[in-house]
Amino acid sequence: MATMNRERSEDSAFAAGRNSWNRHYHNSVVQPLLTDLYQITMAYAYWKSGKIDDNAVFDLFFRTNPFQGEFTIFAGLEECLKFLDSFHYSETDIEYLKHALPQGIEDDFFEYLSQLTAKEVTLYAIEEGSVAFPRVPLIKVVGPLIIVQLLETTLLTLVNYASLMATNAARYRMVAGKHIHLLEFGLRRAQGPDGGLSASKYSYIGGFDGTSNVLAGKLFNIPVKGTHAHAYITSFTGIDELKTRVLQHKEDGTTRDILELAMEHRTNLASVLDVSTDESSEGELAAMVSFAIAFPDGFMALVDTYDVKSRTCWLVRQLAAIRRIVSQLDLISSSHCHLASPRLLTRSGLLNFCAVALALNDQGYRAIGIRIDSGDLAYLSCLARETFERIAERFKLPWFSKLTIVASNDINEDTILSLNEQGHKIDCFGIGTHLVTCQRQPALGCVYKMVEINNQPRIKLSQDVGKVTMPGSKNVFRLYGADGHALIDLLQRVDENPPEVGQKVLCRHPFQESKRAYVIPTNVEPLYRVYWTDGRVAQVLPSLEEVRERVQASLKTLRQDHKRTLNPTPYKVAVSDNLYNFIHELWLQNAPIGELA
Amino acid sequence: MATMNRERSEDSAFAAGRNSWNRHYHNSVVQPLLTDLYQITMAYAYWKSGKIDDNAVFDLFFRTNPFQGEFTIFAGLEECLKFLDSFHYSETDIEYLKHALPQGIEDDFFEYLSQLTAKEVTLYAIEEGSVAFPRVPLIKVVGPLIIVQLLETTLLTLVNYASLMATNAARYRMVAGKHIHLLEFGLRRAQGPDGGLSASKYSYIGGFDGTSNVLAGKLFNIPVKGTHAHAYITSFTGIDELKTRVLQHKEDGTTRDILELAMEHRTNLASVLDVSTDESSEGELAAMVSFAIAFPDGFMALVDTYDVKSRTCWLVRQLAAIRRIVSQLDLISSSHCHLASPRLLTRSGLLNFCAVALALNDQGYRAIGIRIDSGDLAYLSCLARETFERIAERFKLPWFSKLTIVASNDINEDTILSLNEQGHKIDCFGIGTHLVTCQRQPALGCVYKMVEINNQPRIKLSQDVGKVTMPGSKNVFRLYGADGHALIDLLQRVDENPPEVGQKVLCRHPFQESKRAYVIPTNVEPLYRVYWTDGRVAQVLPSLEEVRERVQASLKTLRQDHKRTLNPTPYKVAVSDNLYNFIHELWLQNAPIGELA
Repeated sequence: MATMNRERSEDSAFAAGRNSWNRHYHNSVVQPLLTDLYQITMAYAYWKSGKIDDNAVFDLFFRTNPFQGEFTIFAGLEECLKFLDSFHYSETDIEYLKHALPQGIEDDFFEYLSQLTAKEVTLYAIEEGSVAFPRVPLIKVVGPLIIVQLLETTLLTLVNYASLMATNAARYRMVAGKHIHLLEFGLRRAQGPDGGLSASKYSYIGGFDGTSNVLAGKLFNIPVKGTHAHAYITSFTGIDELKTRVLQHKEDGTTRDILELAMEHRTNLASVLDVSTDESSEGELAAMVSFAIAFPDGFMALVDTYDVKSRTCWLVRQLAAIRRIVSQLDLISSSHCHLASPRLLTRSGLLNFCAVALALNDQGYRAIGIRIDSGDLAYLSCLARETFERIAERFKLPWFSKLTIVASNDINEDTILSLNEQGHKIDCFGIGTHLVTCQRQPALGCVYKMVEINNQPRIKLSQDVGKVTMPGSKNVFRLYGADGHALIDLLQRVDENPPEVGQKVLCRHPFQESKRAYVIPTNVEPLYRVYWTDGRVAQVLPSLEEVRERVQASLKTLRQDHKRTLNPTPYKVAVSDNLYNFIHELWLQNAPIGELA
Repeated sequence: MATMNRERSEDSAFAAGRNSWNRHYHNSVVQPLLTDLYQITMAYAYWKSGKIDDNAVFDLFFRTNPFQGEFTIFAGLEECLKFLDSFHYSETDIEYLKHALPQGIEDDFFEYLSQLTAKEVTLYAIEEGSVAFPRVPLIKVVGPLIIVQLLETTLLTLVNYASLMATNAARYRMVAGKHIHLLEFGLRRAQGPDGGLSASKYSYIGGFDGTSNVLAGKLFNIPVKGTHAHAYITSFTGIDELKTRVLQHKEDGTTRDILELAMEHRTNLASVLDVSTDESSEGELAAMVSFAIAFPDGFMALVDTYDVKSRTCWLVRQLAAIRRIVSQLDLISSSHCHLASPRLLTRSGLLNFCAVALALNDQGYRAIGIRIDSGDLAYLSCLARETFERIAERFKLPWFSKLTIVASNDINEDTILSLNEQGHKIDCFGIGTHLVTCQRQPALGCVYKMVEINNQPRIKLSQDVGKVTMPGSKNVFRLYGADGHALIDLLQRVDENPPEVGQKVLCRHPFQESKRAYVIPTNVEPLYRVYWTDGRVAQVLPSLEEVRERVQASLKTLRQDHKRTLNPTPYKVAVSDNLYNFIHELWLQNAPIGELA
């Protein structure tokens, strides 16, 4: 899609600047105090008990996919690594903690905290942007108990919303199809300033093409998009207000009066489209002319300021009434009803837009398109496209039929599915509230559980087997079939031999004895990499673009039935026979006496 | 409620430090680029059209109260004022905009932007923390069109989530009652780092007593609370791991072995409570002992690590089965069933907690209480309270019966209502996901609409009357009745005389001719104050504490039927006769020909 904002390629000086803005922003928000107080009280109790250096393994995972779906996109890893890298309690942090913690805390503890870093931690994770499934740890953190515990809340905060948002965006991308442009417009409805920034970043990763959020553009190099609001149109009350009316020709430099040209075109168009110019707003025309003069190469206009919605609603009711009469009296054919519509609908916004677009064309410029922010989007987009096509034909301007149609009114996954079903001619959706708030499920419930301490496995039991944790330090493999699709994720104990291509592997349901199957993988992908060890990031991290591509590539390995909107098939997550037996032995050892397990 | 964290009184050096941290944090996120790109493209078009200094009036308001309620708490004003105060495009902002905007933008525009501030703007608002209603502008912004327009998105971002969150918190406070402590525990489920910070701040304003979020404590001086997680308990596998077991007496300094004391008490308690010690976890006991030694004055323990939930579920099923048998056979009285419960439930967490609390008592310390994070909270809290009361009586320790019971598992408004109905003994709720995501309605739909330009009123028409804007610059008054309750909010045109106490005032429904009434107010409150003019904040701003008190005071002026959870009565917002006629004249002038209005 052409838009008014050119795609930018990154030059290196700019990229360096961006890195520094980005770091400044990150560090001002993501810091060790961004945590729950109990992490710090626990840290003190570990310190007092001489347990700080106990070797601990924690898993970060979720139990249910969001949005009634069967997959999740893992995101937020880079932020987690930056957090580890910068982990350090500042002097003012220590000062605050002395103030906030109960009296009687030993001074040596604060001294210890002020020296604490994450350099003894090792962090394993699956690749950012990968599809992920319940119970498979996204991140495994190994290291001294005190620091591994202190990381909990911040890691959860950084992964939960990022993954939820990326998943939500990926779902919008799937229902919209790959040829539709998707723009994130949600800043004003986000959870405060940084909620908006995170939404922009992770919706881009999930498959959106850009955002309206300028700061997100500056910090993350995401394409930013936008034209004007209704207020711009209503700020002009008439054509007398136009202080500048002339525009130079793009090629030959001759100037002409755009307003005059547009008014001529409007009269002409009214007759072509069989509408009257009487009701088109002069203020709107003035606004569009002024906007076209400011952005002759990027003219995109909001066409529904003068109440397309009420007209549509009214029209729809009128049409319905007429159809009822028609069906009863059978006097006129229903095609008459269809012909009636453009007359009413093109009378202001669309008419003015087309007139100004033709005036721009006279001066060597091509308009970009329109935005519709209200009304029946399927119907209006078809109407607008039909109008563009008629003009393209009549004025011998083939590009006119391809003008961009952006829609942006309260759109969610279901709206897009419904529009697809009705048929529409929309090229681009601008999506705000439903995208950024993840209205269908506003939180992903990642948890962070201890699975091993000093080589002793820990298991959390629960009557609800979904809540039983997988004990011990584990590895995860994704097994692929011959058609390239992912078959199953397999959790093993760390000391097991990895599954091998072409060899049969016993995959077991973690809790149901009878559910087991042999799988012969055509490809075996170890899901974990070491991302942080010896106090530094241990991988070359992908760019935002690369993570974004990873999302689509990873989704492609998933069978369609796991991805569909209605009743998707659950993807299987299994344990090795060895891990199965390990879990159930521990369970038995820990089961309370007299309990019905 | 006593908690393990003392309430802090602010000393002045600390307050000064906090202001600087706070400013640093604010400025790193809330900046003029935190906006939608179309604001900047519009700014350029206004600049090109010579309209930058047109005098504009914009209203910021919402159309529907959230959460199926009939009131909203207005919050976010202080952040808006800070934003105005710091409004300035930095060099790197300008550099980025040159890069991001379409080519062909004149250099003089960037020069103009780099000098632009908000000093020519005047901002009126209702007081932060006030109850507010649909269509009453929370904020009115007057000034040169370009800057007033450029403020839109950021003001909306700062008000929308803040108000939604404060309203949500105030609703929790109402259903919980004023004697229950409410703690915000939502950081890990918030929309990223700053979503969490905003949640902490505005839930405090709305009536919460504290947060687990340490950075929010540091930045905003909100009390921070927290004890330990299940991981702390599971990190101990047995009593051998306890490296420190002794604690000095609080008064006389003599040391004793807390573990030994606790084990003696446990044996004793088991007989008092008629339970066995066989099944109480030794790891849990060790963890509690170590925590008590670290925080002898602040001992609060999570008591459900070893699966209270499954026991409860199991128990409930057993009890139900027994009751069925009882009712059929009538062999034993139902009180037997009740007696059966403590035996099962106190066998680990509660038993260990009480034993350690008695050991602490031997050394001169009083424990704080317990946290329950799973299971049937009403039932478990009653059981715990009953246990505490029996111990209080038996050991002549009256304070033991008053130990704090905190509950924290997936709590929402409905859970609290249901707990109230069942009867519970909980003193404090820790609330996370449902609070911070505002799950029942994750966004407040504030909008920002032009209502006047160069003294010409602007009206947005819509077939949906709820979307018709109130044209022109307006004043708002709240009229009170003799009983002190707010009766109605009245919008007037700015040049009208304000309503007077004791004089009858005609209040009209803005759109329905027949709906009108005379009101004789006992008190008239002008809702607007000038908060920003001549480039500075024009009021002494209230502290966070004062805003928090304002919320409760303002809610008190609202009749109970407007506040109730089920089918609350809508509060009335009216227009003066003058404004009514003004709206409808404009409507008529702007109504499209042939429209059924």
